[in-house]
Amino acid sequence: MKLFSSVNDVTDINQLVADALALKQNPYAHQHLGKNRTLGLIFLNPSLRTRLSTQKAAMNLGMNVMVMNMDKEGWALELNDGVVMNGTTVEHIREAAGVMGQYVDILGVRSFPGLKDRELDYSEEIFNKFVKYCGIPVVSLESATRHPLQSLADLVTITELKTRPWPKVVLTWAPHVKPLPQAVPNSFAEWMCKAEVDFVIAHPPGYELCTDFTQGATITHNQQEALLDADFIYVKNWSAYEPYGKVTGGYEDWMLTNASLTETNNAKVMHCLPVRRDLELSAEILDGPSSVVVHEAGNRVWAAQAVLKKMLESLT
Amino acid sequence: MKLFSSVNDVTDINQLVADALALKQNPYAHQHLGKNRTLGLIFLNPSLRTRLSTQKAAMNLGMNVMVMNMDKEGWALELNDGVVMNGTTVEHIREAAGVMGQYVDILGVRSFPGLKDRELDYSEEIFNKFVKYCGIPVVSLESATRHPLQSLADLVTITELKTRPWPKVVLTWAPHVKPLPQAVPNSFAEWMCKAEVDFVIAHPPGYELCTDFTQGATITHNQQEALLDADFIYVKNWSAYEPYGKVTGGYEDWMLTNASLTETNNAKVMHCLPVRRDLELSAEILDGPSSVVVHEAGNRVWAAQAVLKKMLESLT
Amino acid sequence: MKLFSSVNDVTDINQLVADALALKQNPYAHQHLGKNRTLGLIFLNPSLRTRLSTQKAAMNLGMNVMVMNMDKEGWALELNDGVVMNGTTVEHIREAAGVMGQYVDILGVRSFPGLKDRELDYSEEIFNKFVKYCGIPVVSLESATRHPLQSLADLVTITELKTRPWPKVVLTWAPHVKPLPQAVPNSFAEWMCKAEVDFVIAHPPGYELCTDFTQGATITHNQQEALLDADFIYVKNWSAYEPYGKVTGGYEDWMLTNASLTETNNAKVMHCLPVRRDLELSAEILDGPSSVVVHEAGNRVWAAQAVLKKMLESLT
Repeated sequence: MKLFSSVNDVTDINQLVADALALKQNPYAHQHLGKNRTLGLIFLNPSLRTRLSTQKAAMNLGMNVMVMNMDKEGWALELNDGVVMNGTTVEHIREAAGVMGQYVDILGVRSFPGLKDRELDYSEEIFNKFVKYCGIPVVSLESATRHPLQSLADLVTITELKTRPWPKVVLTWAPHVKPLPQAVPNSFAEWMCKAEVDFVIAHPPGYELCTDFTQGATITHNQQEALLDADFIYVKNWSAYEPYGKVTGGYEDWMLTNASLTETNNAKVMHCLPVRRDLELSAEILDGPSSVVVHEAGNRVWAAQAVLKKMLESLT
Repeated sequence: MKLFSSVNDVTDINQLVADALALKQNPYAHQHLGKNRTLGLIFLNPSLRTRLSTQKAAMNLGMNVMVMNMDKEGWALELNDGVVMNGTTVEHIREAAGVMGQYVDILGVRSFPGLKDRELDYSEEIFNKFVKYCGIPVVSLESATRHPLQSLADLVTITELKTRPWPKVVLTWAPHVKPLPQAVPNSFAEWMCKAEVDFVIAHPPGYELCTDFTQGATITHNQQEALLDADFIYVKNWSAYEPYGKVTGGYEDWMLTNASLTETNNAKVMHCLPVRRDLELSAEILDGPSSVVVHEAGNRVWAAQAVLKKMLESLT
Repeated sequence: MKLFSSVNDVTDINQLVADALALKQNPYAHQHLGKNRTLGLIFLNPSLRTRLSTQKAAMNLGMNVMVMNMDKEGWALELNDGVVMNGTTVEHIREAAGVMGQYVDILGVRSFPGLKDRELDYSEEIFNKFVKYCGIPVVSLESATRHPLQSLADLVTITELKTRPWPKVVLTWAPHVKPLPQAVPNSFAEWMCKAEVDFVIAHPPGYELCTDFTQGATITHNQQEALLDADFIYVKNWSAYEPYGKVTGGYEDWMLTNASLTETNNAKVMHCLPVRRDLELSAEILDGPSSVVVHEAGNRVWAAQAVLKKMLESLT
């Protein structure tokens, strides 16, 4: 594997999930693969889970890790070609990416969307330029429109905890006070559409996701109906795709409480974290037996390790 | 050992000091203990000595280390329960701590007091919530009211350098321009009260420490008298416990100079660092033969290594 | 080797270049040298290439690395002696350097000039105080007036890519919008003056470098003439040495384009990076076959590794 940016980069998602679960049982068995190999992690935005879980995954594989907080330890990157760089950008992404490709064997890149210009964000310009110019395998640590390591960890979690074949999985929009990216729901949707699950998306009017990611999903504005008999409920806020990046306010009643769970199939509640308590998701759920959010975050290690292992194997 | 937050977490301080001194002689003998173990260091405040010495201690033990500057690389944590998180805090400490507990084997946490609300600071809310929700062993990297790795390094230093049994150790208040926490003097006091030393605290009126930490100490407002025949002088500023966090100004004559040392027992001068020269402590002492501050800072490694070793042993 | 701050710290530059090229062929052969050794990297200024390449070099040698962003993770250092520290500086460089010397085996330090006070910058006060007070070997990660790891990597690159003995190497000034340090051109000049090359410096009037660094170089204001038959062209902006740190504007025509290269000996174009495209150097050169800037940046690893290897050997 030379690129992990979306579900489309994976030949067999069931096998990748199985790999992750095998690594969870036996984390240190492949340290020969990572010996004298280095993972570079480039952050253009803050990170907690992704940073620590990917670093841990690499160390489990015997790799060295170098972290570069480009926004804090480095300087502003120029993304556009044909620009006379007489402003505030100090280095062009062509050189920055090319140089990083000299120092590490695999590069991880995190780059959020601006949420101002949909075409720009959905072109994945920054992430794609890192891929183009670094010359080495790249793993997405969340890009403008996708968060595939999160989605893989989510599918690992569902596979681990499901109590019947083809569980019903519901992605439900949740309230928030800020406009958030569509990367997590896009990514979760495109993974679930390829997974052996019955997948439903519920959101208020105006929060339709880009249809590129939702082919095969059942989509509804009726949250209560969606939750009926659900095995897994994936809670997440996102801002509108059209008008892009906007939030209309309201829909506070979309926040799940224990009462929302009564007609589910003893559903497990998931969230990618960070979660705002009693705004996106009720504290009573987060602190109760239905929540698997911390367990799910733990699975980020095995998702990242499965991907890095495949990349290391492609290097040798 | 599952928790290192105060002297009360240590069964036998003499043995722990002996362990630290043995590690100083033989730093790399226990790397099997740390193999495939990871230390997470969470900083909510800046750090130099604690960061580097604890990281070094962990590497000496064969551990991996992941550092998370929560304030810079992450986001604002919500500490209170029952809050609707519609403000500026992005993640609740319940989830943040729980997640970190998934990625590392031992967690170190640094969290300073606000110096506004004494009850809050002395409840050690932040540190204790990390302990409660992370589910793994925790070592304090300085909390609101204590700095036990510093105090252990201090006792190691005294044990190493003492020239007679039961040396006289004097903790003396020093001038400063800013209100500083009581964590270092509190912690030093509670360790010295349990150590085989004759312990005296000298400070100006109004700078009484919380009596929970000073049981057994001789306390005086007379610095000159306190220094008589002293073997070790521990210099430190702190703000008032009552009224909490206040500084009254003045007492500049409490700064030690070479003249202050004439009637001591050839006293060694200690300070936890950073130290403001010619404000807290005279440059002539810091640059002269009495100062052991850099040596003392070096002992931070062995203190941390002794604690981490005990924690690793409790994991296996 | 106990100090690497300039070409004057190197006994035999040809041997050091040969060492670097041998390490490039066989990066992991000396990991016994670095076992249980730690490199500390202190950054008082941002860094990308230097940070990552030096870290990589140390890991190749089996060392542990601890990075300290003193400006972001630490606090303001006091540099002056005899100061009552009642202002904003929190720790004196005497203590800070002394303490770091307790925790690591080799220290790397990056400290840029202020470009306000020439005498101060050229005294290398900050770098020299780290050397003086840390008590361990120190490698410059770029100081106020020199960047020797860059220059060594540059000479490695020239040695690797030259097509004839005694190639012609031209350092040419380039336009910029901000006043930049003289460290890179100073350092490049003093290395080239000792190397087996024909060395020419071209710059507009007013941009004379300090003559301490340029003994033996041919210096001209005629860029076109300088480039005749050149094998390597080293492009770099710098601010004036006299009046110190000033930029006069203009000289935009000093930016190289493909047309500038026509009468060279198929010259390779070098730059230390970051480079501002179409301001310092044309995009057509950077994206064309003449540019070796990314390859040159890759050689930073082997330069750093050759220096660290010599320092490690001096420790054992």
